[in-house]
Amino acid sequence: MSVTDWFSLNKNIEGVLLDISGVLYNSDASGGKAIAGSVEAVKRLKASHLKVRFCTNESQHIRSHLVQRLQGLGFDVEAHEVFSPAPAACQLVKDRGLVPHLLVDDKILPEFDAFKDDEGKTPNCVVIGDAVERFTYQTLNDAFRVLIASEEPLLITLGIGKYYRESGELMMDVGPFTKALEYAADCKAEIVGKPSPSFFQAALKDMGVDSSKAIMIGDDIVNDVGGAQKCGMRGIQVRTGKFRPSDENHPEVKPDCYVDDLSDAVNRLLSCSSS
Amino acid sequence: MSVTDWFSLNKNIEGVLLDISGVLYNSDASGGKAIAGSVEAVKRLKASHLKVRFCTNESQHIRSHLVQRLQGLGFDVEAHEVFSPAPAACQLVKDRGLVPHLLVDDKILPEFDAFKDDEGKTPNCVVIGDAVERFTYQTLNDAFRVLIASEEPLLITLGIGKYYRESGELMMDVGPFTKALEYAADCKAEIVGKPSPSFFQAALKDMGVDSSKAIMIGDDIVNDVGGAQKCGMRGIQVRTGKFRPSDENHPEVKPDCYVDDLSDAVNRLLSCSSS
Repeated sequence: MSVTDWFSLNKNIEGVLLDISGVLYNSDASGGKAIAGSVEAVKRLKASHLKVRFCTNESQHIRSHLVQRLQGLGFDVEAHEVFSPAPAACQLVKDRGLVPHLLVDDKILPEFDAFKDDEGKTPNCVVIGDAVERFTYQTLNDAFRVLIASEEPLLITLGIGKYYRESGELMMDVGPFTKALEYAADCKAEIVGKPSPSFFQAALKDMGVDSSKAIMIGDDIVNDVGGAQKCGMRGIQVRTGKFRPSDENHPEVKPDCYVDDLSDAVNRLLSCSSS
Repeated sequence: MSVTDWFSLNKNIEGVLLDISGVLYNSDASGGKAIAGSVEAVKRLKASHLKVRFCTNESQHIRSHLVQRLQGLGFDVEAHEVFSPAPAACQLVKDRGLVPHLLVDDKILPEFDAFKDDEGKTPNCVVIGDAVERFTYQTLNDAFRVLIASEEPLLITLGIGKYYRESGELMMDVGPFTKALEYAADCKAEIVGKPSPSFFQAALKDMGVDSSKAIMIGDDIVNDVGGAQKCGMRGIQVRTGKFRPSDENHPEVKPDCYVDDLSDAVNRLLSCSSS
């Protein structure tokens, strides 16, 4: 079945969730570059009858900085349209009355300002994000000791991605470090962010679209595509960002459709979907 | 069944494998302290009819330094009696003609001197050990990139322990970092050291004792006790080192017997075993 066929056979789509890194832009040390055609594609999508939200596992930058960065690249994105894991994790920790030990990038610490007064209290959970250079033997060991001191260790992770692409290089994401702590402390992390169903559902609820009428477009075969499919959505993989040809033979996840990039997806979607 | 009963019912033992850290001594920054009664216990064991070898997953110190350290604490130990993973891994990499990328503690680099001339060659496998402070985002990422560049990533790990105790504190061992790389690069590590059957078998062969007539005494419920049992040996857990009371309810491994410490084990063993 050709790509065109797929979209023409799936005309009931009302809402679109877009991954950010690897779909809208490729990040690098100097702020990143828009992927060719993506700025225009987002514009056309938002001008159409379709509802749009952005679903990212970005845990290196606070949401407002991420939005500023995207706007600086020309994207039509507002903060309230962006779902990212740090605010969701913060809410979860607050709701349960926990004291968190944070192993996150310094740049997203402001998302956790609500726990500033907890300093000195004994933490009873660990929140781990894409801490990049803050991942050292010492910081991982500190987090491990918080977990192992507890009878039922609680590890909350901002996503479970394996790696991403930055400045052309593959970089380990938060997932491997989560796996390290899970193994060391014999526990199973609670995932906030993709592929957690509650994360997708929050975005679907916000746009008022049922999962059966929504698609997720992402570059991560497991967390974007597989996660969305498990929620009853359709999952489309772009051949940009961290996409690798071997993804097309993934043993567990089969995307509903492949597209070259976001622009390709939007072209086909708007030319085939009912208006 | 009491502890005394177990040894009196198992009189056919001819060989004993001893773990080192947590059984003979507790390591700390200044070289470590012998566990009370252990120096004497090793002496009595070696003076008995039983054969003795030392099986360690130590990958922070080269074997000769480890032996010097133990001798300095009063232990009757010779280098040829000690089985440790780094020399075994070095042999394995040589046998297969591989070019290793080493993520190990600087102190054990001399074990890999054979690969000094490989500098500049593209590595086609990763050897990971307990690299402690050398585990950084950068060094882990470097190892990950070697793995992901290969169609069939080969990760060789010097053990798979979760943690150990040093200066009274629990410290993450090589296992969690191995799991991080396995997850990131979608591969399964090849374990050199305990609980790998070939590692126990090399020590058994060296003392010429069949697994059915040998016991392993260690503080690690999974790698010492479980690993030995899978090899057909009996596995005894000491309540020293990294032992935690929750080990006694381990979901997968049930030691043949518990003892308070090595001294307790040797007392019971020598008073009950045939001479």
